Amino acid sequence: MKMKQFAVIGLGRFGSSLAKELVNQDLEVLGIDRDEEAVQEMVDVLTHTIVADSTEEETLRSIGIRNFDCVIVSIGDDIQASIMTAILLKDLGVKTVVAKALTELHGKVLERLGVDRVIYPERDMGIRVAHQLANPNLLDYIELSKDYTVAEISVPGRLNGVSLKELDPRARYGCSIVAINKKNGVIIAPAATDVINERDVMVIIGTNKQIESFEEDLADF
Amino acid sequence: MKMKQFAVIGLGRFGSSLAKELVNQDLEVLGIDRDEEAVQEMVDVLTHTIVADSTEEETLRSIGIRNFDCVIVSIGDDIQASIMTAILLKDLGVKTVVAKALTELHGKVLERLGVDRVIYPERDMGIRVAHQLANPNLLDYIELSKDYTVAEISVPGRLNGVSLKELDPRARYGCSIVAINKKNGVIIAPAATDVINERDVMVIIGTNKQIESFEEDLADF
Amino acid sequence: MKMKQFAVIGLGRFGSSLAKELVNQDLEVLGIDRDEEAVQEMVDVLTHTIVADSTEEETLRSIGIRNFDCVIVSIGDDIQASIMTAILLKDLGVKTVVAKALTELHGKVLERLGVDRVIYPERDMGIRVAHQLANPNLLDYIELSKDYTVAEISVPGRLNGVSLKELDPRARYGCSIVAINKKNGVIIAPAATDVINERDVMVIIGTNKQIESFEEDLADF
Amino acid sequence: MKMKQFAVIGLGRFGSSLAKELVNQDLEVLGIDRDEEAVQEMVDVLTHTIVADSTEEETLRSIGIRNFDCVIVSIGDDIQASIMTAILLKDLGVKTVVAKALTELHGKVLERLGVDRVIYPERDMGIRVAHQLANPNLLDYIELSKDYTVAEISVPGRLNGVSLKELDPRARYGCSIVAINKKNGVIIAPAATDVINERDVMVIIGTNKQIESFEEDLADF
Amino acid sequence: MKMKQFAVIGLGRFGSSLAKELVNQDLEVLGIDRDEEAVQEMVDVLTHTIVADSTEEETLRSIGIRNFDCVIVSIGDDIQASIMTAILLKDLGVKTVVAKALTELHGKVLERLGVDRVIYPERDMGIRVAHQLANPNLLDYIELSKDYTVAEISVPGRLNGVSLKELDPRARYGCSIVAINKKNGVIIAPAATDVINERDVMVIIGTNKQIESFEEDLADF
Amino acid sequence: MKMKQFAVIGLGRFGSSLAKELVNQDLEVLGIDRDEEAVQEMVDVLTHTIVADSTEEETLRSIGIRNFDCVIVSIGDDIQASIMTAILLKDLGVKTVVAKALTELHGKVLERLGVDRVIYPERDMGIRVAHQLANPNLLDYIELSKDYTVAEISVPGRLNGVSLKELDPRARYGCSIVAINKKNGVIIAPAATDVINERDVMVIIGTNKQIESFEEDLADF
Amino acid sequence: MKMKQFAVIGLGRFGSSLAKELVNQDLEVLGIDRDEEAVQEMVDVLTHTIVADSTEEETLRSIGIRNFDCVIVSIGDDIQASIMTAILLKDLGVKTVVAKALTELHGKVLERLGVDRVIYPERDMGIRVAHQLANPNLLDYIELSKDYTVAEISVPGRLNGVSLKELDPRARYGCSIVAINKKNGVIIAPAATDVINERDVMVIIGTNKQIESFEEDLADF
Amino acid sequence: MKMKQFAVIGLGRFGSSLAKELVNQDLEVLGIDRDEEAVQEMVDVLTHTIVADSTEEETLRSIGIRNFDCVIVSIGDDIQASIMTAILLKDLGVKTVVAKALTELHGKVLERLGVDRVIYPERDMGIRVAHQLANPNLLDYIELSKDYTVAEISVPGRLNGVSLKELDPRARYGCSIVAINKKNGVIIAPAATDVINERDVMVIIGTNKQIESFEEDLADF
Repeated sequence: MKMKQFAVIGLGRFGSSLAKELVNQDLEVLGIDRDEEAVQEMVDVLTHTIVADSTEEETLRSIGIRNFDCVIVSIGDDIQASIMTAILLKDLGVKTVVAKALTELHGKVLERLGVDRVIYPERDMGIRVAHQLANPNLLDYIELSKDYTVAEISVPGRLNGVSLKELDPRARYGCSIVAINKKNGVIIAPAATDVINERDVMVIIGTNKQIESFEEDLADF
Repeated sequence: MKMKQFAVIGLGRFGSSLAKELVNQDLEVLGIDRDEEAVQEMVDVLTHTIVADSTEEETLRSIGIRNFDCVIVSIGDDIQASIMTAILLKDLGVKTVVAKALTELHGKVLERLGVDRVIYPERDMGIRVAHQLANPNLLDYIELSKDYTVAEISVPGRLNGVSLKELDPRARYGCSIVAINKKNGVIIAPAATDVINERDVMVIIGTNKQIESFEEDLADF
Repeated sequence: MKMKQFAVIGLGRFGSSLAKELVNQDLEVLGIDRDEEAVQEMVDVLTHTIVADSTEEETLRSIGIRNFDCVIVSIGDDIQASIMTAILLKDLGVKTVVAKALTELHGKVLERLGVDRVIYPERDMGIRVAHQLANPNLLDYIELSKDYTVAEISVPGRLNGVSLKELDPRARYGCSIVAINKKNGVIIAPAATDVINERDVMVIIGTNKQIESFEEDLADF
Repeated sequence: MKMKQFAVIGLGRFGSSLAKELVNQDLEVLGIDRDEEAVQEMVDVLTHTIVADSTEEETLRSIGIRNFDCVIVSIGDDIQASIMTAILLKDLGVKTVVAKALTELHGKVLERLGVDRVIYPERDMGIRVAHQLANPNLLDYIELSKDYTVAEISVPGRLNGVSLKELDPRARYGCSIVAINKKNGVIIAPAATDVINERDVMVIIGTNKQIESFEEDLADF
Repeated sequence: MKMKQFAVIGLGRFGSSLAKELVNQDLEVLGIDRDEEAVQEMVDVLTHTIVADSTEEETLRSIGIRNFDCVIVSIGDDIQASIMTAILLKDLGVKTVVAKALTELHGKVLERLGVDRVIYPERDMGIRVAHQLANPNLLDYIELSKDYTVAEISVPGRLNGVSLKELDPRARYGCSIVAINKKNGVIIAPAATDVINERDVMVIIGTNKQIESFEEDLADF
Repeated sequence: MKMKQFAVIGLGRFGSSLAKELVNQDLEVLGIDRDEEAVQEMVDVLTHTIVADSTEEETLRSIGIRNFDCVIVSIGDDIQASIMTAILLKDLGVKTVVAKALTELHGKVLERLGVDRVIYPERDMGIRVAHQLANPNLLDYIELSKDYTVAEISVPGRLNGVSLKELDPRARYGCSIVAINKKNGVIIAPAATDVINERDVMVIIGTNKQIESFEEDLADF
Repeated sequence: MKMKQFAVIGLGRFGSSLAKELVNQDLEVLGIDRDEEAVQEMVDVLTHTIVADSTEEETLRSIGIRNFDCVIVSIGDDIQASIMTAILLKDLGVKTVVAKALTELHGKVLERLGVDRVIYPERDMGIRVAHQLANPNLLDYIELSKDYTVAEISVPGRLNGVSLKELDPRARYGCSIVAINKKNGVIIAPAATDVINERDVMVIIGTNKQIESFEEDLADF
Repeated sequence: MKMKQFAVIGLGRFGSSLAKELVNQDLEVLGIDRDEEAVQEMVDVLTHTIVADSTEEETLRSIGIRNFDCVIVSIGDDIQASIMTAILLKDLGVKTVVAKALTELHGKVLERLGVDRVIYPERDMGIRVAHQLANPNLLDYIELSKDYTVAEISVPGRLNGVSLKELDPRARYGCSIVAINKKNGVIIAPAATDVINERDVMVIIGTNKQIESFEEDLADF
């Protein structure tokens, strides 16, 4: 059922990476760019590619853009082209339009024009990397809600051989270890007797405050 | 102990977002950019800011750049400036240098010059968004290993009122629900009698294949 | 009661002419442009002028733009700036926003963003001049509805000394002469005995077809 | 007899709108532009089109430009090309040359070179829109003379159901209502018993002062 | 009486040479150029200089340009500025306007606008040099009429010591030697017994054909 | 014998005028320019034309440039190309090289490289026009020597009908009238009884001072 | 055995001179440049040439660049291209990579990336010429070590006819004359009785100080 | 006596390196460049520096350039400025003018204008490096004459411990070893019993052919 049709307009760094990954997920992807060279580089990677100016209604119509389930507007730096493309896509009846915004104001315009999802890749990646740099043991994380986070945290050398009972994050910090990724496999819902080793990776759920205290103690210990 | 000193060189979209978030984490951040306007916009946001050309050794030295614990090179499009800055930072003895790369080749040069961590914000964000677009219920995810993933999945309307026992993902797909984010709070390590409702969000751990089958069935049902 | 406050953003040919005429109508007008020279030329003409970038929210706020009754966005060629300005004005609560559009697509975006009136000066002027060139006696006109027009038509030499009774446009073409502009004054609702002379100007009301036939006969006679 | 031949040199926004409208009036129009793309967009709209540089005498000659009854020079921003084209057209014997001017000085040169009619589209449209913005009920108008105007004015809600006798503009303001455009048709030379309703549109003739007082009272009432 | 006031607008190669020579003739000259550097170079050479844009009426007025007896428009390559300046000068009432033209068409426009004399320096100098290169003995010449020329011709070595009687150009070619420039002075209306020597220079009057035959024979002899 | 071969390198305003006039003198001229368009315009005018870069030795050699009697370097604004072309021409053995110089320094370099004659068209034309403007009756002139000039002077209205005896320039100013150009022909060596009329043109020889006094009196009278 | 294969990337002044000289040494050289014109000029000089972008891995691979014994990166001004090319060459397994650096920092990056030899042609040539200008008799030199130099010194006129015994540089300055280049041949290890003449050239070995004193005395004498 | 005064015009890579080395030789150097930044970088290195345009005679005069013993024109890429500067320097009476040439033709012009020495840094360095790359043991060399060379050659591992008698280059190749640079000092005019070791460096004099055979055998052995 996953056989949806995607089109990606703008094959810069973000767009081409996104398009390539959609193909990796076995999806059909049409790549579109005004720049012939950019298209040439993706010819062997994507299902279809065309060189076209997405701000011309006639062009989009002749591609049959309305038959695509989801169109991603990942135009690099030309805010005007991004806006013009977005309004054309919505007017031509594309169900789901996703668009990359360069600034908050750009994003606001896109939303007002009916774009279904606005993405700020560089801003979001900046925040994500900042979290990791601020907390050296933090490998990755999911923001569950404003308060709750799932954090992927590497085990520092000092905790080598410590059992979960000894560590007891639930009692000390209020957060739970829901999985441990060890060299020889992942333990889901680990028992108190399970032991963590250096370079193991823990998956923890808790409030931001709880996880923050836990991380700080890990660094300190 | 977290009181590390950061410097961010290049205050474009990625750099300024990263710097701002570090400040949000109560860290001291010096922002540096060649462009006066870019610096002006961050003057009230960051701890310190200066207008400077980071490819001049004398400039970096006079800032006392070696005293910073971590310097992030987030120079926008000027690959040469990024490389020259990186080699100067390493030679001046900065402990941790993180740098944004525009292309694989750029990243390779940075690594060869001793940069501690190379980041590809647009490429990585492209992959992340592709996963979400490919799986509409997938809100976010952490790649635990090549095989295992922690996925944050929204509950579709059809599963409204179903208990975990009925759903039984462990038996059917081999993956575990380790938390449920409900309107009135997060249930960690939920019991078989817990019930999921539309708009709840499940945190699931399993192999990529397991989670993929689960997601597809969610979409199908 | 007419004492409304106007702001005109963009002091090019269209914007400066509009702003100047508003002042001629005894209205208060603030002129805004990014370009210092353009502002300088209007300093003695408008009530107030400032050099400012209208795409910066902070700038518009500090001007107190929300207190203006009507803001006209007459930005020359920069479609992006026009769009960004328009969304900011609506979001800041300006009651009436009028904006000049360069293309149909540009106009569509402006309307979708809530602009109250979109103007296409060059397109509309093109149509108006075309009508006049197509009908050499036609001096000006008002389109009352899709079918009815008020036309200002000059009297050709051949009709010198003809009375309305003789001309009888009502009977021949179905349209009525509602006024005659003669050298020595305007006759409103002229009588059948009134005589027209070369260089007089008639104001006629009728359907487009009626007026067209009348005009053709005037040319032919 | 209206079968005149037109040529439009310069197919920008003003020129292409004018040319299109001439075709709408069933006239033959040749479109000329230096820019191939501009010409391409009008190929299916105009009777004939060619890509040509109108400042080359040889080119104009080979087109047989002298056989056109009326040539409109609507060259966008290149004042020099506009002037050179105008002098060539007059020297080649074109009967009627109409030209768009960007500035007063430009217009003065065109007139001195013998151009039959000089148009300032943006300036004139600026004035027209200013009148409408200054008087919200004013839909359109014709300047009959320096003193007299024909105004198209919408009826405000408060006057719903008022008869002309009650309104009596002739007595109060000195101006006459010569037509009323009602949903179900246009009443020409309406009687005192005729009643106006909200959204009706009145056609009024009077001096500027009379009409102005009338409009102000309409707004006030 | 010769105390006329001159202004030279445009201080390029032609304009500055002309202005400098007028000063050499003890005349008062105001030099005007848009470019500060060009003006700076003439500050010590001309009577007055100013940096100004000659296409702005206000500027010309404030200089009091109408009080100058003769204004020369020697603007380098900007045809539009040349035309705009010329019309302003004539409209402001300058008695004599002389202007340099770049092309025939440019010259035609200038004449049509009332410029009193149009000069084509490079074209005319090209013709003058061509004549000299075509006839190596021809040093300079004045075209008296379409047929008659005054020619300044150097005496070739072979004619050293020949008397005018022997040479007898009147009889052989029909042209007259009206002066001979010899090392020790100029002989006006030389006698038949006067002798010419190598390096002497003869001034000859005759028809073009006569002079041409004479020159050819001089070269041949 | 005049059948010399000319080549003109650089077909701008000066070069093309010069080349055209050489052809008018029945000489063979090869026109060379780097710019295809410039060459195209002279294809039907000159004996031969080619598009070529004259700073490439190989190119000049293949044209057989050394067989031309005289090569004129009239390159517009590119001083470097002018210099490089000049040295190549001399080294390839061209007998006579004539070159246009833009500045004194440019001219000095050309002379030092062996160019046979250096021309400053705009400077020389500036001087010539200055003389004419300074002396309104002076139509043209030849500088015979540092002191002596041949002047072509128009007869002002006041001298209508005056005989040479009455005028007696020889006695009054020391200069001689050697010819009079009258409507019906040229009188060479006119007699004392000859009468001059308005619009006649006199050819006068004398010292600069003599001619100047004469001109001033003509203007005064 | 000398039959090594060379590739030279970047055919500017330095690269083309180097490539040409390698061919003079009977070596096979492939010349590569992005610029077609630069390649065209070397087509007849080098063994092979191609137009290619050396920063594209695919391109270098298809050339079989790894089979070359020595690749010289002599890219003109584009530091980024120089760096990218260098890392690709090393990664593709080229044994010897030589690269030209524009600045010290550029050179440092190249070395860090594994470039085998970094050359600074303009810096080194500057030093070499400075030595020669500082010592007018010094024609050339080899720096044997930090202290020792082999110097090629011309014999000044004053030493004409002096024997080595008389000059005795060994005793006076501590340096030895190991060869004398005389018009009729080179004397290696000359005897004390050998005589030097003006314009002879001596090859001397000694410490820098010794040679310097010798040179100064030569200049003084 | 060496206390000569130098001026270096053009402080690019070549010029600044040359100027710096002259200062190293205890000479006084004035550095001149049009570009302020280039001058700023040398302010602390050279004796004097000024920002000036060397193509303006007045500027050079006011510097007192004629008092310098030697002026080096090392202007980067602007051939015209290089030529203009050179002619001015010679005309102002500078005794020795040295100039860098970019191309052969440029060099030829400089020589023709009287420049005393023309240098081609990149071309010469290209040749020098080519020799070294072609002969891996060749460290440096001096071209004594068209036939004779002094070569600095490193001793390969295979020759470790060989005595000069065994090697006998005189007998085998005809060339002489005039010095050996060993770790502990330089042996001048070494004896037959002297032994060479790996990494020693030999100074050899001979004809090019002799040295070439010797080098090839060294590589082969």
